[in-house]
Amino acid sequence: MSVMRLGHINVRVLDIEEAVDHYVNVNGMIQTHVDPLGNVYLKCWDEWDKYSVVLSPSDQAGMNHIAYKVKSDADLDMYKTRITEAGIDVEEVPAGTLEFVGRALKFKVPSEHEMYLYAEKEYVGTSVGTTNPDPWPDDLKGVGAHWVDHALLMCPFDPETGVNTVAEVTSFMVDVLDFYLVEQVMVGPDGDIQLATWLSCSNTPHDIAFVGGPVSGLHHLAYFLDSWNDVLKAADIMSKKRVKIDVTPQRHGITRGYTIYYFDPSGNRNETFAGLGYLAQPDRPVTTWTEDQLGAGIFYHTRELVESFTTVYT
Amino acid sequence: MSVMRLGHINVRVLDIEEAVDHYVNVNGMIQTHVDPLGNVYLKCWDEWDKYSVVLSPSDQAGMNHIAYKVKSDADLDMYKTRITEAGIDVEEVPAGTLEFVGRALKFKVPSEHEMYLYAEKEYVGTSVGTTNPDPWPDDLKGVGAHWVDHALLMCPFDPETGVNTVAEVTSFMVDVLDFYLVEQVMVGPDGDIQLATWLSCSNTPHDIAFVGGPVSGLHHLAYFLDSWNDVLKAADIMSKKRVKIDVTPQRHGITRGYTIYYFDPSGNRNETFAGLGYLAQPDRPVTTWTEDQLGAGIFYHTRELVESFTTVYT
Amino acid sequence: MSVMRLGHINVRVLDIEEAVDHYVNVNGMIQTHVDPLGNVYLKCWDEWDKYSVVLSPSDQAGMNHIAYKVKSDADLDMYKTRITEAGIDVEEVPAGTLEFVGRALKFKVPSEHEMYLYAEKEYVGTSVGTTNPDPWPDDLKGVGAHWVDHALLMCPFDPETGVNTVAEVTSFMVDVLDFYLVEQVMVGPDGDIQLATWLSCSNTPHDIAFVGGPVSGLHHLAYFLDSWNDVLKAADIMSKKRVKIDVTPQRHGITRGYTIYYFDPSGNRNETFAGLGYLAQPDRPVTTWTEDQLGAGIFYHTRELVESFTTVYT
Amino acid sequence: MSVMRLGHINVRVLDIEEAVDHYVNVNGMIQTHVDPLGNVYLKCWDEWDKYSVVLSPSDQAGMNHIAYKVKSDADLDMYKTRITEAGIDVEEVPAGTLEFVGRALKFKVPSEHEMYLYAEKEYVGTSVGTTNPDPWPDDLKGVGAHWVDHALLMCPFDPETGVNTVAEVTSFMVDVLDFYLVEQVMVGPDGDIQLATWLSCSNTPHDIAFVGGPVSGLHHLAYFLDSWNDVLKAADIMSKKRVKIDVTPQRHGITRGYTIYYFDPSGNRNETFAGLGYLAQPDRPVTTWTEDQLGAGIFYHTRELVESFTTVYT
Repeated sequence: MSVMRLGHINVRVLDIEEAVDHYVNVNGMIQTHVDPLGNVYLKCWDEWDKYSVVLSPSDQAGMNHIAYKVKSDADLDMYKTRITEAGIDVEEVPAGTLEFVGRALKFKVPSEHEMYLYAEKEYVGTSVGTTNPDPWPDDLKGVGAHWVDHALLMCPFDPETGVNTVAEVTSFMVDVLDFYLVEQVMVGPDGDIQLATWLSCSNTPHDIAFVGGPVSGLHHLAYFLDSWNDVLKAADIMSKKRVKIDVTPQRHGITRGYTIYYFDPSGNRNETFAGLGYLAQPDRPVTTWTEDQLGAGIFYHTRELVESFTTVYT
Repeated sequence: MSVMRLGHINVRVLDIEEAVDHYVNVNGMIQTHVDPLGNVYLKCWDEWDKYSVVLSPSDQAGMNHIAYKVKSDADLDMYKTRITEAGIDVEEVPAGTLEFVGRALKFKVPSEHEMYLYAEKEYVGTSVGTTNPDPWPDDLKGVGAHWVDHALLMCPFDPETGVNTVAEVTSFMVDVLDFYLVEQVMVGPDGDIQLATWLSCSNTPHDIAFVGGPVSGLHHLAYFLDSWNDVLKAADIMSKKRVKIDVTPQRHGITRGYTIYYFDPSGNRNETFAGLGYLAQPDRPVTTWTEDQLGAGIFYHTRELVESFTTVYT
Repeated sequence: MSVMRLGHINVRVLDIEEAVDHYVNVNGMIQTHVDPLGNVYLKCWDEWDKYSVVLSPSDQAGMNHIAYKVKSDADLDMYKTRITEAGIDVEEVPAGTLEFVGRALKFKVPSEHEMYLYAEKEYVGTSVGTTNPDPWPDDLKGVGAHWVDHALLMCPFDPETGVNTVAEVTSFMVDVLDFYLVEQVMVGPDGDIQLATWLSCSNTPHDIAFVGGPVSGLHHLAYFLDSWNDVLKAADIMSKKRVKIDVTPQRHGITRGYTIYYFDPSGNRNETFAGLGYLAQPDRPVTTWTEDQLGAGIFYHTRELVESFTTVYT
Repeated sequence: MSVMRLGHINVRVLDIEEAVDHYVNVNGMIQTHVDPLGNVYLKCWDEWDKYSVVLSPSDQAGMNHIAYKVKSDADLDMYKTRITEAGIDVEEVPAGTLEFVGRALKFKVPSEHEMYLYAEKEYVGTSVGTTNPDPWPDDLKGVGAHWVDHALLMCPFDPETGVNTVAEVTSFMVDVLDFYLVEQVMVGPDGDIQLATWLSCSNTPHDIAFVGGPVSGLHHLAYFLDSWNDVLKAADIMSKKRVKIDVTPQRHGITRGYTIYYFDPSGNRNETFAGLGYLAQPDRPVTTWTEDQLGAGIFYHTRELVESFTTVYT
């Protein structure tokens, strides 16, 4: 496993000021840079690299690209070969193309999402430092998210016409990028159609997830919180700040995580995801959810899937 | 990183019945096997391999060996070569020598602790299964620990005579076994003597830790709990069961974890360690604690080191 | 204030076996008695009197009566006079009419609900005893509710025809029974119509509440839990036991409490209400919620009132 | 019960600036007044009266007086008579003698502590207001204590010479001031000597407590927090602010509360006390702790009494 983590996500927003206010004062991120095009770069207090979210002004919400950080520059060469051998065009972009980032690989995964791999990003340090650090800084804003934890991407899926880019992108992530499958939802009369997958390149239950839907898109971008109690504080703060909450505090069956889903002012879904859930490991057997229990998998308490949850995304 | 996790620890106990009662009814483990020598094998509900603790009857408490699981059989060959090249004798023990375990490598790390590496152990599954699992099983006992999380080993350390096996074993774990250094305590007039280290082979703040002391030994064996609230429940249960508590609920500065230290009936120190703390990553800069802040590093709330904490161990 | 607390509530259920299973294995109550008519009596582990819920077999769900315990027998004489002077018929029922209860006053409050006052009920003790008690017993079932905390009663309300039994019953509770008003919802063009009230006879935010609706009925019966974390455990257990959850974990604006609403098998709404919220006091000014913020008052996180919440009750 | 609650406590401090910094930035109180003598008045965010703590510059730490608020002015007349009839001199001090307070009764309880009763204090309101309030304000400082909850007073106690002012003051509080006994510690060969008592005038486990010791004094002044999780946050903040912690997070057996004991800069012991514990009621049987279990009563987790806990006070 040479991919270390989600490095950053580039999200399109309709009103950059409103968006920055949300990502700073609700999510608790710190603005670290604005580029000449007006893109705003932010990091969480517990992250050490320059940014993990880039907000890009646009007339349509959604995701421009998602980028993962690999361990070493040599990994980029290795992955360039493997991605190419998988029949996917990969473009090598020079250092600085992504601001503060070294050379990077750019390509489209089978679900049509644009992805980058990179090995270097400017280091700025966490808010607590590396010498005798406090466990949390004094000046937390909003929910005080620790870090960008994962993203869930919607993938074209239409089993009647044989389209299942969830399965395709999952295979790509596993075979080419060394992620491993942690949980999956299997549907269809024979339970053999992979509707959704959760994959890890670390020891957390997911670093990326894919769910089938009508079109390619961004379902949500998730932030890590420590505990169920932080989820309560987060929900209180969202109410105070009149954030549109999609799903109030609840446990996921899948990953066991404690969640709130809510929207940024442009309609991009955010999540606060709390708790480790469990320690994912390559030899931990894959957890499978069957179609009849899908509701409990997503929303463990109600055991019912809200339709808008899979139809509304950007 | 081919070492996946702490696979099991073999602990010596003075009274096997009392010990089993403690590890089952306090720690919440499940007995899975007793071998002909009377060694008792146990696993936690959230572990899938056959056992993670082996209790061995003895007239002296302490640790016999600690074993880590690697990803593949081929890793054993690779590590055999590397350990040997590091000048350490390594014995290859055949499958079944460790019960339910495939072939293994046996060797002594520079701090004199006996360590095994293995790639296979019989699979028995977690208590919630792999299909539509509940987040926790109905029949939890005691504190209901999720898994054995890490161990802290005491290492011969006497800077006046130039002995520092903390530094030696840390180098070994990093250079030979691909662990990475996450936190360290530096002491001495120039702050250049490594008194204690926390190392990870995963994304948790530590899979093993080393602290300098007069003699080689076991400082503690730690179990994972989800949250600070589980720590309260654990402390209540320990009181009910009259477990000797060494350190009541408190936060560590190092790792940020929520802890209780307590003793099994033989005097082996156990820990409930709760919360992820933070996501350890190879590129996260090492956290260093200076000698004057060591107290806060160990016990963040009191900021004072209790002497018995580093002098009493098995 | 001579009324001490909600003593018990008599709830009608469609299937007594299913109901007992729910109140015992979900709510965590202990069955203490079955009378010759098949009514089942239950108490929570942290209550000391013989019962706090009576389940009565019926072909229609809902509440038969609600009973409050007063401090002394002399209080019954005092209240008999005051209730009569308020123009309400009061019947004195002899000891034993309500099982294990001393003499009692029986009357209808202005919202048509049947209420009893009594001063004596057989003492059986809490599950932890009175000498060196543990903070909680070992044999908790289900959510392990501490006690029956309060009830919310629906009261005929139709401002267009001048009907407002919320205001009437509130006045009665304050003027005659010495409760005090803690929070209220005021509606109408001038904000002068009392749609809902929360009243205390103790120092908790409510011992009874009234909300206006089409007909008299029982909105819910609430159990006390200690914390937001207990609410998570409760929701997990409800999912495991396939309890119909009405509202997943959320904070109330009114009372600040942490809540889950769910239904017993007959459709009677139950609540787990956690946290003290705040210390109610007679001189604490009444909190008023305006019609435009009613949603936030009931469901602080979503700030939106679910219609079924005020239309579905028994 | 006409006494409603602890109204305020007047504490002597050695350095008023350091003290104000502690009560504001650690405890989270709000300074509301400084009188011409340099006494500083503070309230908590969730309190509505003008102040609950008065800090008085002095060369010796400790308590000057403690004041309880009664329901009505008429109660003062009633209590004046009853206190006098109990053989205790009571002085009526005119309105304004205690700043912002109406007329008051001043007297010494049998343990030599000076106590006031009053019915009126200037109202200033909580930090969240009375119309559509948020559950907590945005500008919390330090631990953000809700209110001053109770005090524990040390009372001259020497059973060998027949001195037991714990028993005397307890009788006074019950017989004259209408408090009721909730918990007690009984010691001595026959278990009939009342060493400590916890009394309530509300429905919380204690509004005042008394423990026997060599001399009369203040053991601690306690603040209410909502939960065990708030206790963690409080301990973290105390570490950050280098507050001297006496007892790290732990549960009391007595009252079931979650506690931290710590010292203000003058050495006056403070407590954060979290959770309701249980609902105290006049008919709830008194909980008795026996001498051999006293340790568990005070510190449920360690079950051991720290000597300094009863010998160090102001």
